[in-house]
Amino acid sequence: QRIRDLGIEPGVLPPGPKNSITDVDGVKVGHTSLIKGDSVRTGVTAILPHEGNIFKQKVPAAVFVGNGFGKLAGSTQIEELGNIETPIILTNTLNVATGMNALIKYTLNQKGNEDVRSVNAVVGETNDGYLNDIRGQHVKIEDVISAIENADTEVEEGNVGAGTGTICFGFKGGIGTSSRNLPESLGGYTVGVLVQTNFGGNLQIDGAPVGEVLDQFSFRDRIMDSADGSCMIVVATDAPLDTRNLKRMAKRAILGLAKTGGIASNGSGDYVIAFSTSEENRVPYKIESDLLEKKVVPNDLMSPIFMAAIEATEEAIFNSLFIAETMTGFKGRSIKALPMEKVIPILKKYNVIKE
Amino acid sequence: QRIRDLGIEPGVLPPGPKNSITDVDGVKVGHTSLIKGDSVRTGVTAILPHEGNIFKQKVPAAVFVGNGFGKLAGSTQIEELGNIETPIILTNTLNVATGMNALIKYTLNQKGNEDVRSVNAVVGETNDGYLNDIRGQHVKIEDVISAIENADTEVEEGNVGAGTGTICFGFKGGIGTSSRNLPESLGGYTVGVLVQTNFGGNLQIDGAPVGEVLDQFSFRDRIMDSADGSCMIVVATDAPLDTRNLKRMAKRAILGLAKTGGIASNGSGDYVIAFSTSEENRVPYKIESDLLEKKVVPNDLMSPIFMAAIEATEEAIFNSLFIAETMTGFKGRSIKALPMEKVIPILKKYNVIKE
Amino acid sequence: QRIRDLGIEPGVLPPGPKNSITDVDGVKVGHTSLIKGDSVRTGVTAILPHEGNIFKQKVPAAVFVGNGFGKLAGSTQIEELGNIETPIILTNTLNVATGMNALIKYTLNQKGNEDVRSVNAVVGETNDGYLNDIRGQHVKIEDVISAIENADTEVEEGNVGAGTGTICFGFKGGIGTSSRNLPESLGGYTVGVLVQTNFGGNLQIDGAPVGEVLDQFSFRDRIMDSADGSCMIVVATDAPLDTRNLKRMAKRAILGLAKTGGIASNGSGDYVIAFSTSEENRVPYKIESDLLEKKVVPNDLMSPIFMAAIEATEEAIFNSLFIAETMTGFKGRSIKALPMEKVIPILKKYNVIKE
Amino acid sequence: QRIRDLGIEPGVLPPGPKNSITDVDGVKVGHTSLIKGDSVRTGVTAILPHEGNIFKQKVPAAVFVGNGFGKLAGSTQIEELGNIETPIILTNTLNVATGMNALIKYTLNQKGNEDVRSVNAVVGETNDGYLNDIRGQHVKIEDVISAIENADTEVEEGNVGAGTGTICFGFKGGIGTSSRNLPESLGGYTVGVLVQTNFGGNLQIDGAPVGEVLDQFSFRDRIMDSADGSCMIVVATDAPLDTRNLKRMAKRAILGLAKTGGIASNGSGDYVIAFSTSEENRVPYKIESDLLEKKVVPNDLMSPIFMAAIEATEEAIFNSLFIAETMTGFKGRSIKALPMEKVIPILKKYNVIKE
Repeated sequence: QRIRDLGIEPGVLPPGPKNSITDVDGVKVGHTSLIKGDSVRTGVTAILPHEGNIFKQKVPAAVFVGNGFGKLAGSTQIEELGNIETPIILTNTLNVATGMNALIKYTLNQKGNEDVRSVNAVVGETNDGYLNDIRGQHVKIEDVISAIENADTEVEEGNVGAGTGTICFGFKGGIGTSSRNLPESLGGYTVGVLVQTNFGGNLQIDGAPVGEVLDQFSFRDRIMDSADGSCMIVVATDAPLDTRNLKRMAKRAILGLAKTGGIASNGSGDYVIAFSTSEENRVPYKIESDLLEKKVVPNDLMSPIFMAAIEATEEAIFNSLFIAETMTGFKGRSIKALPMEKVIPILKKYNVIKE
Repeated sequence: QRIRDLGIEPGVLPPGPKNSITDVDGVKVGHTSLIKGDSVRTGVTAILPHEGNIFKQKVPAAVFVGNGFGKLAGSTQIEELGNIETPIILTNTLNVATGMNALIKYTLNQKGNEDVRSVNAVVGETNDGYLNDIRGQHVKIEDVISAIENADTEVEEGNVGAGTGTICFGFKGGIGTSSRNLPESLGGYTVGVLVQTNFGGNLQIDGAPVGEVLDQFSFRDRIMDSADGSCMIVVATDAPLDTRNLKRMAKRAILGLAKTGGIASNGSGDYVIAFSTSEENRVPYKIESDLLEKKVVPNDLMSPIFMAAIEATEEAIFNSLFIAETMTGFKGRSIKALPMEKVIPILKKYNVIKE
Repeated sequence: QRIRDLGIEPGVLPPGPKNSITDVDGVKVGHTSLIKGDSVRTGVTAILPHEGNIFKQKVPAAVFVGNGFGKLAGSTQIEELGNIETPIILTNTLNVATGMNALIKYTLNQKGNEDVRSVNAVVGETNDGYLNDIRGQHVKIEDVISAIENADTEVEEGNVGAGTGTICFGFKGGIGTSSRNLPESLGGYTVGVLVQTNFGGNLQIDGAPVGEVLDQFSFRDRIMDSADGSCMIVVATDAPLDTRNLKRMAKRAILGLAKTGGIASNGSGDYVIAFSTSEENRVPYKIESDLLEKKVVPNDLMSPIFMAAIEATEEAIFNSLFIAETMTGFKGRSIKALPMEKVIPILKKYNVIKE
Repeated sequence: QRIRDLGIEPGVLPPGPKNSITDVDGVKVGHTSLIKGDSVRTGVTAILPHEGNIFKQKVPAAVFVGNGFGKLAGSTQIEELGNIETPIILTNTLNVATGMNALIKYTLNQKGNEDVRSVNAVVGETNDGYLNDIRGQHVKIEDVISAIENADTEVEEGNVGAGTGTICFGFKGGIGTSSRNLPESLGGYTVGVLVQTNFGGNLQIDGAPVGEVLDQFSFRDRIMDSADGSCMIVVATDAPLDTRNLKRMAKRAILGLAKTGGIASNGSGDYVIAFSTSEENRVPYKIESDLLEKKVVPNDLMSPIFMAAIEATEEAIFNSLFIAETMTGFKGRSIKALPMEKVIPILKKYNVIKE
């Protein structure tokens, strides 16, 4: 069950109709989950900013690095040019190159891209090497293409796609999503978030100290420290934001991660990729005039959008944890799902779930 | 009362003996509080990294900008050279120049600095213009010098120094401090934090949704949005960290701010200044050999230090709120202290204060 | 004489009519030169982006830090919000606070700014402490105001304003300016540069190795190394650039500095402040609608603007050197002007000046 | 012929014995050049920081982005952790993923790395799509491995490895290298540079305006603008520099590019990767104690190292141009070598080559 089905409602802003990144008009998400034999527990998640040819209609974008122990591909060009020209792929650490190659082939082969000789593939990752035979590099180009082609507005969560083998706060993590709708008086925009959760810290659920009560948090003993992991966060909005304000919004997503008890540990690759779907601000591959006309949200109206990004990130992380199920994988290792029978009473005791 | 006196204990790491930034050996803090007539509600807080001549024994340092709507002086040189060469001054927005001038005079006049011709003054600020006649620029050079000279290991909190006129989550904010001691197995280091709280968001106290229950949070209506404010955060540690890891630690302090419900709103100047007091890594004004010998904490051992910075920041913010008292000032405006009679029951209801 | 009067023409793009930063429509520059008694050799230079109330009509802006051993005030807010709200002041290192205070008073006192409680003063500096009694902090608030009020489209160069006491490549430096006009086919924009030159390296004039031939360059002996200094560079353009592309343009100015033989030495504070005067992209103090409409130059058309910034920076530096005259100052120290009787023959020998 | 063989000697510092990046002790370089049929003109260049297991003995490193229109892999982790853990691979734009996969396999398969589950592959690129059928992605994993295995202290220049199909200032570019030895009084360190040149601008050779005289420079007409390209720059030094000072040194390499007439155009991917080979500062994969002991060069002694990086970069670029030969490739396109019969007289006329 997603957390709202249990009565847990982090923050004060209302979610969108699907409470999903796909509440942002035009955004689609596709997964390829690879669960094979005893050892393969990995996959691919693709996020499409819009349905058209993304290379020819690039979207304004930004990246914020929460902690850079990670292999995100594409970041320097996004920073320099302020846009994204491919779908965003999430996968495991040692298959980033596969994701890049798939995006290159996907782009080169798209109608209208026959003369393209440069592609800035955007691929993020977390390390699922505890449950998955990551050294086997089991993701193939066709798995990535398939995730792109399957993309839809219905987003599966938990042990799917790039979240198939991930671990979060010592429990089974995975893919989660959430959204916020701002009231018309605050712009009426939608902010949607999708996360691939694979990080540690001291789990707090909507304020309740679940990690402490369960006695499961970082540094209880020194050994546990080695399991740091990462969190990839994708933030989409229909608000017409320029690159600078997209980067500011991206920075806020890490505040959402903080509220769940994440600490952005040394070994964590915590990256936020943010983009705006606003049609009028898209960046054409070939410019047709010497000036681009844009409409953008002024700085002064950004704060509610920041709050939306924080709240949706927090909730997306919880959704990943609540939907993910116990998984056994590589070398017989097993990671348990968040134990609802213990967690629900804690949340009641701490008044997060009202009785 | 500080929050621990009420039984509120955010996080899992133990505080130092004073639960103060001055638990970091050598660090001292001094305040000058300016409360005059109906309109002056401002002041100065000075943080001294060590007792010696700071210009001649610079400390490794870093700055992280959470949100840069602020006037912090000194940041680019800290970033380039990796050190701080003056005390750190906090004051109000329109008196940053006064703070700089005071630090320059203080430094030029120190014994041994007779040939100094360049001083990188580090001065942070938040805007106390609601309660204080900020346009009057009431802080004088001697107020700054006096804060430096009064510096001590006992740190007053609440409506003092640079926190005299600040507002936090709609309640009276001010100066707060806290610390964490890591167990020997995690390095045995101390991390101390001092904050000047003047920001908004959606107040959560150790997880309890106090802002929501009191119906006092950002964007309840659009008008409130104009009151954004800022948070200055100073993080000290005796851990021998190089500039890069100091910057990483500084970045974590914003995660602590997030846990209190801060959103780093558009108008916020949220800055973290971090330094290490480690004697062996100090940077001499005149180098005596062609190589500096350093001992530094490796990346792999940083995570507990990150967690300490998060927890101490969260607690320091709460201390500022719990100690600050109702203040009336400029134009008869009044800002109430956090209403304990309402807050304590909420904290009990949400099991933050155990009954 | 300016270098073009001698037949020296760096680069391939044509200068504007005045070959000055004031070729960018609306930009004005004012100086206050302080030459008093034996010891005072300093001053103030003010650059005004437009003639109106800058606080109420902010200009898109960016800062690039070439080397951050400097005290530039205002940088983090420019980076965060993407604009400048005051004139730009250049002065000496220990009078930055004076410049800030003057800008604050100037802004608070402007008609229409009666409710302003926050001002992001932009003040750059270089260290003129060899020729000037810098510890005396001889610049006063009225000197700064006077530079603003005297601002004009005619720009004096050499030993004026903030360049009164500066040193460049071991010769007398100062203020210099230059501009480039792009042909209509490349946008028709103007890029103007003003520099305060106070740095070292290995002087090359339009390619000719003047420093080497004169045997005057850094590290000839180790002692000379201590004289590093700084270069403040202000780049203005009427091209409608957003913050991101302004920052990219700012970055190119350092390439122009490189072509003169500058090395951005350790002790150098080499900063570039860039802004666009484009009226339609100005940022109003109080927003009147929920969206800002902008017209901006696309990435693909930026390269000629980059080239213009490089060329104008190079030429502005040379103008500062060729106009500055021998100056005697503090403690009887004297710095000679570039020795034309030696330099001209070198430039002829190296075919820079055609015979 | 390399430029010194012609009597061209940019700068004032002396080169090392090989005038090559391999003058930095322990550094090796290997090429795989792919010249097949009419269409394949590409390759791989590998730079090895030392001869051991780089993953287990990481080297302090930094990246500076001159202009980020490029696909450099590995940058965010270098920035966060301050080190490099693989050889550095240069290749063409659409084969970056191949380079990454090769580095991952190389690392996973190295003795002692059996438990490694995360590899930060560092791969840079420029776009050789004019002379090479880049969409064919002709580089294979074994080509990359082979470049690593062939690495040697003798470095071929010109049309080899990743420089096989590149274009520089409209002429045939390629791989170039150079070095500088600092005198003992300035530390005695060596700085070596290797470049993959594929960029445009307005060629100046040791000051002589070769591009202008040959009437071949950017923006002569608008059409030419589309050919921007990139420059990858690798800077090695035996100076014991920490990450911060490595980044500062990296930044200076772009000043060397500027001196050749490069403008870091919009479409350019100009990246500098810098590392220190200093053995005592290496970062072990598994830490053996709680503190790392380091010896580092203090800030105050960095300037000569900066100058060395500038000079070696300038000279490396010229070497690439002077050694590269006319190349015909994809679709029958041909790019001519720098026409010595015209260039030498220009260099004589401008006194760069003394007669």
